[in-house]
Amino acid sequence: MMKQADQRNLTMVMDLYELTMANGYFNDGDMETRVAFDVFYRKNPDRGGFTIFAGLEQIVEYVEDLHFSDGDIAYLRSLDTFTDAFLDYLKKFQFRGDIYAFPEGTIMYPNEPVITVVAPLIDAQLVETAILTQINHQSLVATKTARIVRAAEGKMVSDFGARRAHNMDAAVYGARASYIGGAAGTATVLAGQMFGIPVSGTMAHSWVMYYEDEFEAFKNYAVNYPDNTVLLVDTYDTIQSGIPNAIRVAHEVLEPMGKRLRGVRIDSGDLAYQSSKVRRMLDEEGLEDCRIIVSNSLDEHTISSLNIQKACIDGYGVGERLITGATSDYSDDTLALLGAVYKIAAVEENGVFVPRIKISGTVEKITNPGLKKVYRIYDQNGKAKADLIAKADEEIDMSGEFRFVDPQMPWRNLKFTNCTAKSLQVKVFDKGKRVYELPTLEEIRSYVKRQLGEEIWEEEQRFNNPHVHYMDMTPDYYDLKMSLLHEKGKATS
Amino acid sequence: MMKQADQRNLTMVMDLYELTMANGYFNDGDMETRVAFDVFYRKNPDRGGFTIFAGLEQIVEYVEDLHFSDGDIAYLRSLDTFTDAFLDYLKKFQFRGDIYAFPEGTIMYPNEPVITVVAPLIDAQLVETAILTQINHQSLVATKTARIVRAAEGKMVSDFGARRAHNMDAAVYGARASYIGGAAGTATVLAGQMFGIPVSGTMAHSWVMYYEDEFEAFKNYAVNYPDNTVLLVDTYDTIQSGIPNAIRVAHEVLEPMGKRLRGVRIDSGDLAYQSSKVRRMLDEEGLEDCRIIVSNSLDEHTISSLNIQKACIDGYGVGERLITGATSDYSDDTLALLGAVYKIAAVEENGVFVPRIKISGTVEKITNPGLKKVYRIYDQNGKAKADLIAKADEEIDMSGEFRFVDPQMPWRNLKFTNCTAKSLQVKVFDKGKRVYELPTLEEIRSYVKRQLGEEIWEEEQRFNNPHVHYMDMTPDYYDLKMSLLHEKGKATS
Repeated sequence: MMKQADQRNLTMVMDLYELTMANGYFNDGDMETRVAFDVFYRKNPDRGGFTIFAGLEQIVEYVEDLHFSDGDIAYLRSLDTFTDAFLDYLKKFQFRGDIYAFPEGTIMYPNEPVITVVAPLIDAQLVETAILTQINHQSLVATKTARIVRAAEGKMVSDFGARRAHNMDAAVYGARASYIGGAAGTATVLAGQMFGIPVSGTMAHSWVMYYEDEFEAFKNYAVNYPDNTVLLVDTYDTIQSGIPNAIRVAHEVLEPMGKRLRGVRIDSGDLAYQSSKVRRMLDEEGLEDCRIIVSNSLDEHTISSLNIQKACIDGYGVGERLITGATSDYSDDTLALLGAVYKIAAVEENGVFVPRIKISGTVEKITNPGLKKVYRIYDQNGKAKADLIAKADEEIDMSGEFRFVDPQMPWRNLKFTNCTAKSLQVKVFDKGKRVYELPTLEEIRSYVKRQLGEEIWEEEQRFNNPHVHYMDMTPDYYDLKMSLLHEKGKATS
Repeated sequence: MMKQADQRNLTMVMDLYELTMANGYFNDGDMETRVAFDVFYRKNPDRGGFTIFAGLEQIVEYVEDLHFSDGDIAYLRSLDTFTDAFLDYLKKFQFRGDIYAFPEGTIMYPNEPVITVVAPLIDAQLVETAILTQINHQSLVATKTARIVRAAEGKMVSDFGARRAHNMDAAVYGARASYIGGAAGTATVLAGQMFGIPVSGTMAHSWVMYYEDEFEAFKNYAVNYPDNTVLLVDTYDTIQSGIPNAIRVAHEVLEPMGKRLRGVRIDSGDLAYQSSKVRRMLDEEGLEDCRIIVSNSLDEHTISSLNIQKACIDGYGVGERLITGATSDYSDDTLALLGAVYKIAAVEENGVFVPRIKISGTVEKITNPGLKKVYRIYDQNGKAKADLIAKADEEIDMSGEFRFVDPQMPWRNLKFTNCTAKSLQVKVFDKGKRVYELPTLEEIRSYVKRQLGEEIWEEEQRFNNPHVHYMDMTPDYYDLKMSLLHEKGKATS
């Protein structure tokens, strides 16, 4: 399996301030102090109820490969910003920390630490940018795809997005993420080659236009691919020309070879009207098994609308909106974006991790301090009822009643009963060494499907005004956060 | 200078249908027929009046490097879709065609061919995906940046977007595109290293939170970077804590060293209110030369709003919306996307290129047929008045009156007088060999700046309801298109 880092040195895909800070810590002799950073995000994309955690595999690759080449050091030296001692230190730098993370594919919610890095200060700082870039990109695309797959109600969704992706990696790792999110396959060849994702693709309008007439174009395609003839029927006029020519090919070219016309694809116009009409035309000619595939700026909203109109569609090719996370439903400014952040949570002092908190005038920008654990709480039916943030060293015993705090309504007296708790983070790196076996892409994809099918409330998956997943705290953790807020609030006012 | 293709084989970043079509053409013995494909797009992103053409350098790299490795061939064989003869042919494949393109950085408009590929059928098909991906990505980001730079009215704009980019390439080539579009620099180190773009970066909130208190954090930073002390002041409370501590550092740490506080950065809260207040606080302390930098989900609309509020801002760090093209102004579904397409325009038959046209029920999806040239028409003041599409072999003589057709209003009798015409496409590849020297990134950036400053109407650059650039045709070209439409329209109705 090819890795991103196999073929090139990605170390320097980092913000300069990671290095200016590292240089400062180094010169101050602080680089061995261990700290904890949490990765979390504040808002689900598309006003949704959940996000799929994706990109961990590429994060692991980045961390394992992190090293500064002589060329990198020479460039950094040319910036005239860093001390020679620091640059010598970087030459030999390897990541030495611990990393904990949700398994890839885990459904995640705002404000919980999906990754925690516990590492010497410089090590923790240098991995920030790459971690965020991977999570923000792949999680956005995986989640968007899951929404589109949900709208498609069991019909096949394929990624056709390479040409609209934000450059090469976005095409390839976007295809990976879309497969995690439930796409049946991709058109991007390299993604098939690298990850074993099923690839598909038939013809462009240029195939039809190359030939003198449409029938000849279809015929030549059918002769080349008799077992997989899917014809693009909208180059001139779907109803007047494309479908009649496709039917002729089915009868005159394929049936004499004992083959069937596999499908037609419509890429423009009113897909609801055309697909119904095309279905009738095909059925009247005994082509009930010919599938109708559509494409053209689709997303979960346009597909839902096609469902309501009872369009006759067997599969969707989705391009730009799947691969960029863009939406056709515009009404606020948080769409098409996922904004995971990397915030310091604790600093080790004399062997003890002392919590840090970021205060802000904007309530949602206040961080959750300290070393912590996240549990997913399941009811008797295996449904994910809530997530629970606890102090790292708390015992979580759900055998009886378990008291917790809803930080939105801390005055309420709340208890979990008959529930089970699963700790979500697994240890991925121990002192710089990977200690976790990465799941295969198929395993990640099945894990997503199982969670969305069995564990995650339907109410969190709907597109409009989804239920907000509960993010609760243990009483001890809540007290810790409140006491820090009081202390810091006093200090700054 | 490092290239994308130096370190990895990007050939397979293509849609599978390029290969299924190529296999079909090969098996039919058609692979030597030459065809012409045009690259164009239909709509400016962000409802704008223009788009900056970017990404040509990476397209050239892709085409020059295009080759199928043994591993690629083995993977393609495993798909059980291609004939052995075709796969043997691919093994030795090298691009053999001609490519014409606008120089990188040229302001472009909808429906004009910004790239034309004239090549044997298979060669022309295989380069489609990579060409579109590069143009769509880099042109989107360059254009978005130019809009943001325009809004900033001469204040510095820097790319802070790596962590929100759609994976690694999008961070690096997005930084390149944003520099073309007028950004002063980037925070992404690899983009600085690869392209010589100025890099900048100071500290994150984690620097401030690592230390026991904010003053200590600021002091340690100032000691490390006395010549470039820019302090992030919003970790706890900008007005109550951040600015007073920054002022203390200026007086107590920097001034005794003979240094000045270079700047403060505000990353949250009401930037208009805070920046004015901060300006007053700094000025009262004799720190008139301390610059105020802001960041936090900015784009051209939020920056315009800050201008109206007379915010006191000296520089903008722009992240997610610059690097993804997203917008804070949502009201239709074409934002944040650029959709260049690749359409066949002509097929060579007996040494003559015979035009092809794509008809569509949607008027804007009708293509411009045939081999053609695009001219930019300038008035006496050097302003770009219109673009003009002509047949490839027409003589364009602007010395007298020049009659043309506005295809939106073909009944009008229109003439250019006292104008000059510049042919926009240059020849980049001749029979597979590059014959064009690529400009440097600085040259591209200056070229953009010169066009936007001197040639392109202000009316096309405004954000609201910009003037639509005229896309005219010579009478001969217009007649050609109309006659094809009549002919094809007859054939399909």
